[in-house]
Amino acid sequence: MSALRRLLLVTALGLNLSLAGQVSAEPIIKNVSTFMLGNGMQVVVIPDHRAPVVTHMVYYKAGSADEPMGEAGIAHFLEHLMFKGTPRYPAGELDRVIRINGGEGNAFTTRDYTGYYQRIARDQLDLMMDLEADRMQNLVLKDENVLPERDVILEERRERIDNDPSSLLGEQLDSVLYHAHPYQKPVIGWMEEMKQLDREDAIDFYRTFYTPANAVLVVAGDVTAEEVKALAEKRYGVLKNTFTPKPRLRTPEPEPIAARRVILKDNRAASPMLQRAYVAPSYATDSDGEAEALEILAEIMGGGTTSRLYRKLVVDDRVAAYSGAWYSGDGLDSGSFSVYGAPAPAVDIARVETGIDAVIEDIITNGVTPEELARAKNRLIAASVYSLDSQSALARSFGTALTTGQTVEDVLEWPQRIEAVTAEQVKAAAARVLDERRSVTGLLLPGDNPSGAAAPNPAALDSATQH
Amino acid sequence: MSALRRLLLVTALGLNLSLAGQVSAEPIIKNVSTFMLGNGMQVVVIPDHRAPVVTHMVYYKAGSADEPMGEAGIAHFLEHLMFKGTPRYPAGELDRVIRINGGEGNAFTTRDYTGYYQRIARDQLDLMMDLEADRMQNLVLKDENVLPERDVILEERRERIDNDPSSLLGEQLDSVLYHAHPYQKPVIGWMEEMKQLDREDAIDFYRTFYTPANAVLVVAGDVTAEEVKALAEKRYGVLKNTFTPKPRLRTPEPEPIAARRVILKDNRAASPMLQRAYVAPSYATDSDGEAEALEILAEIMGGGTTSRLYRKLVVDDRVAAYSGAWYSGDGLDSGSFSVYGAPAPAVDIARVETGIDAVIEDIITNGVTPEELARAKNRLIAASVYSLDSQSALARSFGTALTTGQTVEDVLEWPQRIEAVTAEQVKAAAARVLDERRSVTGLLLPGDNPSGAAAPNPAALDSATQH
Repeated sequence: MSALRRLLLVTALGLNLSLAGQVSAEPIIKNVSTFMLGNGMQVVVIPDHRAPVVTHMVYYKAGSADEPMGEAGIAHFLEHLMFKGTPRYPAGELDRVIRINGGEGNAFTTRDYTGYYQRIARDQLDLMMDLEADRMQNLVLKDENVLPERDVILEERRERIDNDPSSLLGEQLDSVLYHAHPYQKPVIGWMEEMKQLDREDAIDFYRTFYTPANAVLVVAGDVTAEEVKALAEKRYGVLKNTFTPKPRLRTPEPEPIAARRVILKDNRAASPMLQRAYVAPSYATDSDGEAEALEILAEIMGGGTTSRLYRKLVVDDRVAAYSGAWYSGDGLDSGSFSVYGAPAPAVDIARVETGIDAVIEDIITNGVTPEELARAKNRLIAASVYSLDSQSALARSFGTALTTGQTVEDVLEWPQRIEAVTAEQVKAAAARVLDERRSVTGLLLPGDNPSGAAAPNPAALDSATQH
Repeated sequence: MSALRRLLLVTALGLNLSLAGQVSAEPIIKNVSTFMLGNGMQVVVIPDHRAPVVTHMVYYKAGSADEPMGEAGIAHFLEHLMFKGTPRYPAGELDRVIRINGGEGNAFTTRDYTGYYQRIARDQLDLMMDLEADRMQNLVLKDENVLPERDVILEERRERIDNDPSSLLGEQLDSVLYHAHPYQKPVIGWMEEMKQLDREDAIDFYRTFYTPANAVLVVAGDVTAEEVKALAEKRYGVLKNTFTPKPRLRTPEPEPIAARRVILKDNRAASPMLQRAYVAPSYATDSDGEAEALEILAEIMGGGTTSRLYRKLVVDDRVAAYSGAWYSGDGLDSGSFSVYGAPAPAVDIARVETGIDAVIEDIITNGVTPEELARAKNRLIAASVYSLDSQSALARSFGTALTTGQTVEDVLEWPQRIEAVTAEQVKAAAARVLDERRSVTGLLLPGDNPSGAAAPNPAALDSATQH
């Protein structure tokens, strides 16, 4: 979903929310700078002097969509294994430093990138860089630390996916939405492949993608660009690329031609639910502002209780307990547009689908109103203003952009592009993208099948500091 | 489909059809022998002295399921390119020899293997071996003969798949039936990937799989095992393996958990049609004779006008114009079981599906009768007897078996295994395999979508002699 993008990208420019709820575009986050180290590692610095802390993130342009055939889950597995230590810093040292300094750490794997971050007192930045640069090249993997960690990711899959019917449905949707592109795979991997992952697979992936020329450093916080540059050159600039990172060659997706459906019956599901995804362009693949138009379309159709879907299905027709929409535009190769709804008690789920189809048809035929358009723009921008407090979210917006085919400028100019979207563009995007041939409709039905109940969006996997 | 298997495997043993339609298991194809050359190339000889002709086939254990990620179609493309000549034999020489001798040649690519064959006068066998052995190692590919051939396969895809709604539906079914395994890909490839195939991709595939240790030679016809052995050693035995053939590592398929549907609307479709596929074991992956039980189940459910589906849907209920079933058991890693039906004029296709579901439910609940079981066995075996005249079909049965995880003994013992299947096994196989969670149901509806009308089963691609 694009909550992340909405929240984050606008924060880069920064906006002031007036008392009347109107927003103005006066930047409060200023002086974002970017430069390249001699080894090809890109650096982004976002000064933020509100507190004496820094957020230090390293992103690799390598995610589950870059995995070799038959090794689904290796990107995420390696993320776990990156905490297994080096000759200089044994396993646990990073976590120990973070803990005694009252900081926090995290790592996450998505389809397109893998990120590592620490939020810590500003005087620990040099040490964080030293630790991160060290494990970029000197990770030590042995069967005795790899194989037990494999049990950890298998258990993670059981808990987050296999025990959660709605996650299982999402996984099935992705698998059916894409015919050829690796976005069809779950980030965590399919269980049968995960069981076969081993030390060699992890080292191969590490030696294919973990090198300075394939990495992005983002530092946000109480530092200046000059300070970061000096530290980055000392810690990261000295690293040599011992191999050329592999080009990100993903299988192209054929043009979709047939509406699809997935019916998952699971007696652990508390209530029925419908979710439909359409293949859509992403920010990296769209043309003529279609991604921004889809962002606004999702807001108008399904953002909150004033949206078209909520008003029609929940308030007016009373057929749904909830209904909404979101646009996922962060993919390097493709995005998706999703709608969802759950029937009100004792209502057939078919009426939810009929209601959603009617809302879509209305927008395709009649477009959106100027008032809806203006309100959606304000809401998108306002929502992002509230996220300004999160330094890590701010840093993450740049890491995401720079590993998914976008630039610092794309991030900075996003609010203007949102402002420029017209009602005609929204109507045209709806007509082109909300075509049943591009879609998979998933139904989760409390049913008679044995299968486990607990995780969020499987498209990204966050790991806490403790691995 | 298993027509091939039915037709071919039994012919290996050979059976006499009595006037009463009863079959006996007296072999008329005798003395099948197999041996290995020193370089690891397996040879099978099937003496058949009815006419002074031979069928010469070379199979490679390489098909579309062995293709690298992002290169869908390269196995079939290389099959075409194998006719582009060598330093000793220029392009067209093989076809010329076949033509002037009144023979015939063919090549075909499937998911699991690629085969080349010639049927020709027996005195040309040595020359055929020389030509085939030569192009196994000395193929000359240049952009000037590769790139025009790519246009040929693109056009082949347009004609055989894109212009044929039922082929498009089949392709969509495969794509949705498998989540991770490469059987999800069409053998001919997805257009977008085919367009990017080039000389280097073809050479890489050739140098990965085309070597004696990865090949099987089958010779059927008016020759003795001794003659074939001498010729094979002279022509093939002298070849060195200049590389080790790559292991066939295919992505394992996760256990299916959700019923799926594909709705293809195409205004070129003459009438609506339903086809449903279930993931099933294959002969290579099954246990306890389940593949044979599924072969019989398909015959009872959907083999001809006395089958359950035809009687109920077409004769009794008059809801369908036709209806049937087949089992596809030849896959190295998986098989599938399919049912299909088209509504009678002015009947809703939903009634066809209801009828098919009722037939399935009845068999799962009540099993099959001893009479049905006996008749199915007789029909399967009798059908194969009629195919004895086809020397190439005979040879092909062994080539298929030896490149899909089976042995010469498996082929020879198939009739006994069919004979041994019990009604309980058929019922149990139906109950396990015909589970909606394992299925994709495809609907082809004459509709409003523009898309191109003409080809057979896309799971195998045969090429005529003229490329």
